[in-house]
Amino acid sequence: MPPTITAFERSPDRGRGMARDMRVRWALEEVGQPYDVRLVSFSEMKESAHRRLHPFGQIPTYEDGDLTLFESGAIVLHIAEHHAGLLPDEVNARARAIAWMFAALNTVEPPIVERSMAMLLERDKSWHEERLRFLDDRVRVRLGELSSRLGDADWLDGEFSAGDLLMVTVLRRAPASGGLEKYSNLCAYVARGEARPAYKRAFDAQLAVFTGQPPTS
Amino acid sequence: MPPTITAFERSPDRGRGMARDMRVRWALEEVGQPYDVRLVSFSEMKESAHRRLHPFGQIPTYEDGDLTLFESGAIVLHIAEHHAGLLPDEVNARARAIAWMFAALNTVEPPIVERSMAMLLERDKSWHEERLRFLDDRVRVRLGELSSRLGDADWLDGEFSAGDLLMVTVLRRAPASGGLEKYSNLCAYVARGEARPAYKRAFDAQLAVFTGQPPTS
Repeated sequence: MPPTITAFERSPDRGRGMARDMRVRWALEEVGQPYDVRLVSFSEMKESAHRRLHPFGQIPTYEDGDLTLFESGAIVLHIAEHHAGLLPDEVNARARAIAWMFAALNTVEPPIVERSMAMLLERDKSWHEERLRFLDDRVRVRLGELSSRLGDADWLDGEFSAGDLLMVTVLRRAPASGGLEKYSNLCAYVARGEARPAYKRAFDAQLAVFTGQPPTS
Repeated sequence: MPPTITAFERSPDRGRGMARDMRVRWALEEVGQPYDVRLVSFSEMKESAHRRLHPFGQIPTYEDGDLTLFESGAIVLHIAEHHAGLLPDEVNARARAIAWMFAALNTVEPPIVERSMAMLLERDKSWHEERLRFLDDRVRVRLGELSSRLGDADWLDGEFSAGDLLMVTVLRRAPASGGLEKYSNLCAYVARGEARPAYKRAFDAQLAVFTGQPPTS
């Protein structure tokens, strides 16, 4: 039995691959692990049956035999630990790749998510424009620091790793106004991630949920 | 040579243990690993020498021989993987403990940090009160979900783990108005963490930096 993940029945981003199941799909595709998907509605996500899998009522979850996991970062790490291809073998390089996983989710993603939430929830507020400039500045600081570190390297630390996988998915959520396009090395980095065959397979699979058409590839 | 971590030269919380070096100190104390501390000023943190260790110019960092790490979550996980006492041996239980590490940092902490940032940066704004209620609601939702999952258990999943260690440090940052005190099981959970001898040693060590007095214990 392949593992089963959960994903939105109705993708709020219309299949643009921004939902967090994309990270898990991509990781599974990188390591060549087939998987099943169970789609859940927004109301099902908040019901007790789903909350037994995910205490915070979100997607994705991961079920494999007796094991149930939640949190996309933890699921990607679990996949990376149990298959070759997403973490270096050398012990120090492996620890550094995991540090980039945490950096993607804890340092780079939060200001990007806050900015999206302001767009979703505060558009009608009198303070919206003023706050947006402040939020854009926060995103820009992080992008600038990341751009400086990446320099002209292909990936954050040696070969492509689970750290890059998460960072690329996080950067794809960055608002245009946050200035990603000002950092040509970050744009090229995201494009390198998106060009990977495993990324494309994962993207097509999540898009197929939205269109209702099976992936053509 | 013991590992060296970095911490604030001047603790912005006046030694209340809220800075992220506390997590790493606690983990090192739990596993009985001595460590050195190098204090850095706010300006040093942003200089290139420190940024070589931490691309985002923050603390803590962790140096052990050839290995340099950043991100408190990654450092705690590294310590937990190389010493007994912070992760279960059983493979599924270990994966679930790591899921709680990610949940603490990615799902529970972000709304708590946003709330703190609003207190720091938006106190003089006309919208401050209105936004604060909204931010308190976001924190409360997460605390309610966590409280439901914890129930009357001592720890989140079996024995104390690195997941509990991170979750306790995250909950300690929750604002009083976010309603932590309404969840008696979460208050007791935090108190159980704070009562651990390793927690106390770590707390005293970081407090001693602020007071300038060596720990008395």
